[in-house]
Amino acid sequence: MNKQIIHDRIDSLRQTLIAQDLTAIIVPSADPHLSEYLPEYWQARLWLSGFTGSVGTLVVTSDFAGLWTDSRYWVHAADQLNETGIRLEKLAPSQPNHIDWLAERLQEGDSVAVDGNVLSIAEQDRLLDAFDAHDITLITDRDVLSETWTDRPALPAANLYVHDESFIAQSATSKLAAVRAGMAEAGATHHLLSSLDDIAWLTNLRGADVDYNPVFLAHMLISEDSATLFVDNNKVSADIAKILEDSGITLADYESVQDALSTLTPEDLLLLDPSKVAVGTLSKIVDDVGFIEQMAPSTLLKSVKSDADINHVREAMRQDGAALCEFFATFEQRLAAGERLSELDVDSMLIEVRSQQPHYVSPSFPTIAGFNENGALPHYRATPEKFSYLDANEGDGGLLLIDSGAQYQNGTTDITRVVGIGHVNSEHKRDFTTVLKAHIALARAHFPDGIASPLIDAICRAPLWQAQMDYGHGTGHGVGYFLNVHEGPQVIAYSASTPKERAMKVGMISSNEPGLYREGKWGIRIENLVVNTPVANPTETEFGDFLNFETITYCPIDTRLIEPLLLDQVEIDWLNEYHSQVFAELKDRVDGAALEWLTERTQAI
Amino acid sequence: MNKQIIHDRIDSLRQTLIAQDLTAIIVPSADPHLSEYLPEYWQARLWLSGFTGSVGTLVVTSDFAGLWTDSRYWVHAADQLNETGIRLEKLAPSQPNHIDWLAERLQEGDSVAVDGNVLSIAEQDRLLDAFDAHDITLITDRDVLSETWTDRPALPAANLYVHDESFIAQSATSKLAAVRAGMAEAGATHHLLSSLDDIAWLTNLRGADVDYNPVFLAHMLISEDSATLFVDNNKVSADIAKILEDSGITLADYESVQDALSTLTPEDLLLLDPSKVAVGTLSKIVDDVGFIEQMAPSTLLKSVKSDADINHVREAMRQDGAALCEFFATFEQRLAAGERLSELDVDSMLIEVRSQQPHYVSPSFPTIAGFNENGALPHYRATPEKFSYLDANEGDGGLLLIDSGAQYQNGTTDITRVVGIGHVNSEHKRDFTTVLKAHIALARAHFPDGIASPLIDAICRAPLWQAQMDYGHGTGHGVGYFLNVHEGPQVIAYSASTPKERAMKVGMISSNEPGLYREGKWGIRIENLVVNTPVANPTETEFGDFLNFETITYCPIDTRLIEPLLLDQVEIDWLNEYHSQVFAELKDRVDGAALEWLTERTQAI
Repeated sequence: MNKQIIHDRIDSLRQTLIAQDLTAIIVPSADPHLSEYLPEYWQARLWLSGFTGSVGTLVVTSDFAGLWTDSRYWVHAADQLNETGIRLEKLAPSQPNHIDWLAERLQEGDSVAVDGNVLSIAEQDRLLDAFDAHDITLITDRDVLSETWTDRPALPAANLYVHDESFIAQSATSKLAAVRAGMAEAGATHHLLSSLDDIAWLTNLRGADVDYNPVFLAHMLISEDSATLFVDNNKVSADIAKILEDSGITLADYESVQDALSTLTPEDLLLLDPSKVAVGTLSKIVDDVGFIEQMAPSTLLKSVKSDADINHVREAMRQDGAALCEFFATFEQRLAAGERLSELDVDSMLIEVRSQQPHYVSPSFPTIAGFNENGALPHYRATPEKFSYLDANEGDGGLLLIDSGAQYQNGTTDITRVVGIGHVNSEHKRDFTTVLKAHIALARAHFPDGIASPLIDAICRAPLWQAQMDYGHGTGHGVGYFLNVHEGPQVIAYSASTPKERAMKVGMISSNEPGLYREGKWGIRIENLVVNTPVANPTETEFGDFLNFETITYCPIDTRLIEPLLLDQVEIDWLNEYHSQVFAELKDRVDGAALEWLTERTQAI
Repeated sequence: MNKQIIHDRIDSLRQTLIAQDLTAIIVPSADPHLSEYLPEYWQARLWLSGFTGSVGTLVVTSDFAGLWTDSRYWVHAADQLNETGIRLEKLAPSQPNHIDWLAERLQEGDSVAVDGNVLSIAEQDRLLDAFDAHDITLITDRDVLSETWTDRPALPAANLYVHDESFIAQSATSKLAAVRAGMAEAGATHHLLSSLDDIAWLTNLRGADVDYNPVFLAHMLISEDSATLFVDNNKVSADIAKILEDSGITLADYESVQDALSTLTPEDLLLLDPSKVAVGTLSKIVDDVGFIEQMAPSTLLKSVKSDADINHVREAMRQDGAALCEFFATFEQRLAAGERLSELDVDSMLIEVRSQQPHYVSPSFPTIAGFNENGALPHYRATPEKFSYLDANEGDGGLLLIDSGAQYQNGTTDITRVVGIGHVNSEHKRDFTTVLKAHIALARAHFPDGIASPLIDAICRAPLWQAQMDYGHGTGHGVGYFLNVHEGPQVIAYSASTPKERAMKVGMISSNEPGLYREGKWGIRIENLVVNTPVANPTETEFGDFLNFETITYCPIDTRLIEPLLLDQVEIDWLNEYHSQVFAELKDRVDGAALEWLTERTQAI
């Protein structure tokens, strides 16, 4: 991108700040639904700064422009922000974040604008906490961007569709009743949902308004005897409107949610998740309406998959595993034949094999294919402008990390494998085997039913910690059912807090993905999806109920990268049993070179 | 105790409730210092209910009397409350606690009294949160007990003494400067300390006002240029007064702390720990004095022991270990000679051998010696009224759990060992070995410097969880240096929250004490003290700093109770190295039967 364009856009924004008597503007990476993937319409931070990373916050004042982003993106952001006049501000626990920076630099009486439509209630609380003490005013109801961003894209307009009913175990009517039971328990008269995965789950509808997540832009307002879906009517067919009506759900225009909320009275109690509802959505609500701020009931309900759901996901995993066998067999044949392949080829080949599987919809997130030092950037993405060839010269090979996944109507997948390219050395093997030990430790773990998910992270990391190694990301995230690849409430990460909302329950699907990243050298991550399952045939019953994980990702782990001397017998047994299961699950779904590859790579060590 | 006396006392208390127009009174187990061990003067809950457990809350209304206590005491409390008219209310996560109970049963306009002198600010906040919504008034400034408790004991009057200066590495002046640095960092002008361990640490003084903890009743008020110790002047010798004066500490009467606080102005900012200061202590403070509610700076400072401190503690541990060798050798000889010994004999024999060691002061907590089913009660205490003989008939032996410790001027000890009496079977061995695996897992663990202590608990419990076993208490508590045997801020317990105040720092001493309790059968706990230590000669440096534990308790673990097939080689190596170290540390300190016992019990397995 021409860096001068960025200068021009920031200059134009500064004109508006002056004209509106504002000291600063904060432009976050967010939308009115606090989604992970944003429609272009809400990618103001990208448009203004040129920084393409998924997370970052831009702050502009009359004489400063800075972008705060976390360590995953520092290399990338430094490159993209170079010569734009925007400083890279490194977001780290020991450094001031953008809120601290503003609270410290601004004067009493100054005003800071943020678009309330892309600011969660929880984030507004954090801003007010910091600003009130310094007498700085926060303005969330002002249009600051329009004069600068004159060619702003339109909102997405993809049609809604019904999640194939053969994969649906619970009707929207039944889900709505369960949500209402949660509202009653909390004492709420009304419930506002803005989070798109919750709305898609609750309605059994899907959409294509953003990449990777099969969701559609909408809000929902639910009371004891009504439920309204606020969505662009042009996206809703007559059939779907009828289905919604039969489920007791009324349609209203996407833009009318504020007006609908303005009819609530001080006698009403509105349940909402403050981290999942934007301030702007509540802009017309009358004072004195009571709020019950807590996790939405649907967030827990949708995280707990039924046996039927899990059966469908197992089948999606077999499809995905078969596709990966095809990919790896072809990939290795082409490399062996001397073909020069790149990280981009990996991406396109994966999409090719997966798209041939039944019920395939799309990738579930952007493929990460990182060779050697690129693999050490946990959120690396090869682009046509910047990528590496998988060049392994004699005696100088390396590790290729591939993190990818797909949306199938019968399940969402997410898998990371590392493969050796050319000659791998003993350091590669030691690192890979240590990560494998961590993966196996969690895969085998038993833990008390209902424990807060962050508290079991140490079981996974212990083998790495023992070798004085660690990794900067979480060990596991929740995964949706043909929905978002990142869904809570559970998160296996010791950096997370441990409220009771994060309790581990039977039926939750999470990732198990420890890693290791040596800057400038290589990255390793071994990721399978796992389901919370009661311990079968308990031998003890007096110490409470215990869960363990069923691993449901079926794909070989590269045994050529293992140093067997670092594994104990329990770990070797786990690995051999896993590979025996992978072979059994996939052998009838592949043939030819893929079957040969599967057979060879699932041999016991 | 005659149960009629309890009836009479509760009846008398009800008269006062009626006379003062109160609906209910709450009588907690607390004092103005929120101490673990209470002077008799503040044991109102015990006096009123007859329940001798250390923790419990009594609630009395006109037609109800109930005592809430946790599972450790249910058996004990049921027995002691029987026929008193006081109901045992079981405190458990799923059950309403006394606050829930009151909020639900009481009517709008009702009044509940608690003595503000034994109510922490944090607990008052919890009461107000629950009561405000129901329009129930909380009264904390009323004398309700005096008319009932006419023969209330006097406050303790033990003299203060100086902690032997050969064991002191930092002067009171230097400690005071460090506390003031913490106050400045928090922006406080004043700091109130009511916690007795903090005050003893800060002044380098000790006392004997309560059992087990070498502390004295006092408050401290610290400003930038003054420090006042509020203490009964009769306890302070002229020498100590002079030492305090030289450290910049002024004396004032214990009872005058409220008046001193009344001189603060709205310009002042008072730092205090809301869980460690009683509401009554602040009874005369003017409105609008600002509070900074956080952990006291001294709490962290005293938890981080200096190298010199730790060297003294290692020596105290050698003394304690030598005493335990004497004890075990004699104990086993007497049993072998056919003598009938009881749990009470264990207690008195332990005190006997420890009191012969240099610098001995007292036990550090009441000895728990529990044979078989008594060992399954984690806080069991044998009393002359109720205890067991260690009777092991042919083919019918069992496990004796001994948890004990001492205060020496050069360190505080706390150790639990389990020994077999008579014939032990394979179930005993399986349970003991599984607990040992948990103990070793934590003893060997590496973990990131600064991690919140509760997050590593899962490493310890994993081997038990794997066998579907668990225990209801924490895995580790902080331990003071010739101070309280239970001191924060760190606590290795996954039930605890994970604020940054609980970060693990080099020099902290904690217990490592996993256990297993089979109701009606036996209890197992293996406890050593451990010090947070940087990993020696790090092999990796790019993933941050790591800590591990140095085990500083030197006493054999009963290898006769181990099933070696359940241990892996790493665990066997740890155990053999531990026993080799125990032998080396103690061999020159014991002779005769004790040396023979040590030699035999530290043989490699």
